[in-house]
Amino acid sequence: MIYITRKENFNAAHRVFLPELSDEENYDRFGACSNPNWHGHNYTLFVTIKGKPDKDSGYLFDLKKLSRLIKELVIEKVDHKNLNLEVDFMKGLIPSSENIAMAVFNLLDPELRKQGVALHCVKLYETENNYVEYFGEED
Amino acid sequence: MIYITRKENFNAAHRVFLPELSDEENYDRFGACSNPNWHGHNYTLFVTIKGKPDKDSGYLFDLKKLSRLIKELVIEKVDHKNLNLEVDFMKGLIPSSENIAMAVFNLLDPELRKQGVALHCVKLYETENNYVEYFGEED
Amino acid sequence: MIYITRKENFNAAHRVFLPELSDEENYDRFGACSNPNWHGHNYTLFVTIKGKPDKDSGYLFDLKKLSRLIKELVIEKVDHKNLNLEVDFMKGLIPSSENIAMAVFNLLDPELRKQGVALHCVKLYETENNYVEYFGEED
Amino acid sequence: MIYITRKENFNAAHRVFLPELSDEENYDRFGACSNPNWHGHNYTLFVTIKGKPDKDSGYLFDLKKLSRLIKELVIEKVDHKNLNLEVDFMKGLIPSSENIAMAVFNLLDPELRKQGVALHCVKLYETENNYVEYFGEED
Amino acid sequence: MIYITRKENFNAAHRVFLPELSDEENYDRFGACSNPNWHGHNYTLFVTIKGKPDKDSGYLFDLKKLSRLIKELVIEKVDHKNLNLEVDFMKGLIPSSENIAMAVFNLLDPELRKQGVALHCVKLYETENNYVEYFGEED
Amino acid sequence: MIYITRKENFNAAHRVFLPELSDEENYDRFGACSNPNWHGHNYTLFVTIKGKPDKDSGYLFDLKKLSRLIKELVIEKVDHKNLNLEVDFMKGLIPSSENIAMAVFNLLDPELRKQGVALHCVKLYETENNYVEYFGEED
Repeated sequence: MIYITRKENFNAAHRVFLPELSDEENYDRFGACSNPNWHGHNYTLFVTIKGKPDKDSGYLFDLKKLSRLIKELVIEKVDHKNLNLEVDFMKGLIPSSENIAMAVFNLLDPELRKQGVALHCVKLYETENNYVEYFGEED
Repeated sequence: MIYITRKENFNAAHRVFLPELSDEENYDRFGACSNPNWHGHNYTLFVTIKGKPDKDSGYLFDLKKLSRLIKELVIEKVDHKNLNLEVDFMKGLIPSSENIAMAVFNLLDPELRKQGVALHCVKLYETENNYVEYFGEED
Repeated sequence: MIYITRKENFNAAHRVFLPELSDEENYDRFGACSNPNWHGHNYTLFVTIKGKPDKDSGYLFDLKKLSRLIKELVIEKVDHKNLNLEVDFMKGLIPSSENIAMAVFNLLDPELRKQGVALHCVKLYETENNYVEYFGEED
Repeated sequence: MIYITRKENFNAAHRVFLPELSDEENYDRFGACSNPNWHGHNYTLFVTIKGKPDKDSGYLFDLKKLSRLIKELVIEKVDHKNLNLEVDFMKGLIPSSENIAMAVFNLLDPELRKQGVALHCVKLYETENNYVEYFGEED
Repeated sequence: MIYITRKENFNAAHRVFLPELSDEENYDRFGACSNPNWHGHNYTLFVTIKGKPDKDSGYLFDLKKLSRLIKELVIEKVDHKNLNLEVDFMKGLIPSSENIAMAVFNLLDPELRKQGVALHCVKLYETENNYVEYFGEED
Repeated sequence: MIYITRKENFNAAHRVFLPELSDEENYDRFGACSNPNWHGHNYTLFVTIKGKPDKDSGYLFDLKKLSRLIKELVIEKVDHKNLNLEVDFMKGLIPSSENIAMAVFNLLDPELRKQGVALHCVKLYETENNYVEYFGEED
């Protein structure tokens, strides 16, 4: 079993808040992250897949293909976007890093299975000091 | 003459657009950066000052003091904020990296002069692939 | 299960040596790290916790709260300090990265349990080329 | 159980291709990586070992010794070399990152066992956007 | 005057040697860099331009346009290539970092002038420990 | 004119204080940096030289030679050392980053002149957030 990881980036605006709370209540709970006028990040996304490398080619999976797949399924939907307002797979979810990472995992997992490899982990940096990792349900 | 540099970070939302243009025209001119729903960045700010180190202490300037000054004059006004809507020193300016860097320079310069040191450069990273530098008018 | 990680920094002096050995014997065993006049590092500390994110907020744990907790329990005791002479939780221990990481884990673990989250890993960089990871006893 | 990691670097040329295919067929399969005139990378290698730290010294393993061992067994054979033509432990293997990581693991594992520590992981960065990890057969 | 910088990457093989010398003589002069079987690097290229930002847009120059120009004029010619054998603008030159940086400067300069901005500096990292900077003839 | 830069690292302990002041007075002036029990850093040193590249070899200066020179003249004297007590070229100087950078410049400058190249800049990182640059007297 070998693990390969591809790194991609996107920039987005978001706001962490609960719609049923007032701006003051949201500030008490989420601090500056709840700013009603939004703020944003340069997100860094690491996608790790696992499997046996092909005897012939020595490749587990073509990384250019993996990059293209992440770009099509994820990056194009979130880059230069508002994560609360414009991203279909985040509808109804607070755009915390935890929720983004889980949603990205669930988006990529079935597609990668079809391609014959297993998704191992989605790691998302919100800032250089904070990141989350999600390994799927069974982990 | 010696140069010392302090690095600080902030996260913010912005939109690059001209109010007199339609969304389509802004998209043609500024691409995804003009998204009406905003996007955002982890900005990294480098402030460089220059002068003669104090014979006694070996310090040009106390870096904790420099950090505090940058935080008070700049970071508190932009961190977790919307650069188009909420930042007084960006009023009426398109929040391009160029304009932010120049505005930050003009904000810090008189205050640092009062403290007896000269501001040399403001360098601003918008992403890890793009940065701007401003050295003031006379440079 | 989701994992979130917070990065903090501290600068400290230390010396790796056994008090029962002479300076020469310590040099033979630990090399330049045993310098009786000390040396030091910019340490980087990564603390990873795990659990289920809150359905409501999408947060596993408030990262500002995690940062504050690490600062109070660890950083304030080690930053700009001598790890051999001034740090209560390192008393009687050689300040190798291994011992620091384990001591930090054992310091944070009970406090985080009280807060309802599980500590997963403490990762400590001594230099950019060397790091240790500790996952607790049961790992 | 504690884990320690040492980072080393090397620069090398390589070509990813199957000798039984024509240049065109290799290009179709491996893209620009199959360039018959070679290309190259700054590889970054992370070697992680695990075990119990010595009660006395607080060390799992002397990192200078680990660094020396990696340099002797791996770096000297690959640094400033052509991975297809000049590296004995890559003979008959396509120099994909997957194959290099597995070969390095199998090269270091018996030697580290002799020294009384267990090799946990070999992680290899080919570029800052791509890396592979190998944990050995039983993982 | 404001300066903006765009970072791009490429991977390439090269050999530093003088054709009139034997392999042994080249090794004496250039060390492992003269390996007749090539070696390679992940090069990182920083291109800095300078000028007055547009009053209207706040932009000195569109960074996506700058990126595209660097890719078309430089990256496509060197990425996954052999710098000694396959790069027209390096013909007859030893592919030292110095020579690459100067050649890239001379390639970009006239094109950027046509676009109305001045090229200030080409900075090229060969490894994370070594880089060169070239500011053109008059600097 | 071309500029080449070499990066080297060292780890050291230090204390920023004036011997004529009490510990309390030093704390008031220099904060935690004045800790009488020392603290330390991973310093990163960038040495930039300038000149005309050799027509023949395309080299301004052999970087392995530059690295060796920096190691012999600087790194060996400061690495794993106490900058206040053990470093001859810092005798009588407060080991602020400013003073270290200037002392390193003055140490390297005459030696590099003998080798036929001009020292342009010494840049010293004390932490990832702070650095100083010194260009010599005439700059």
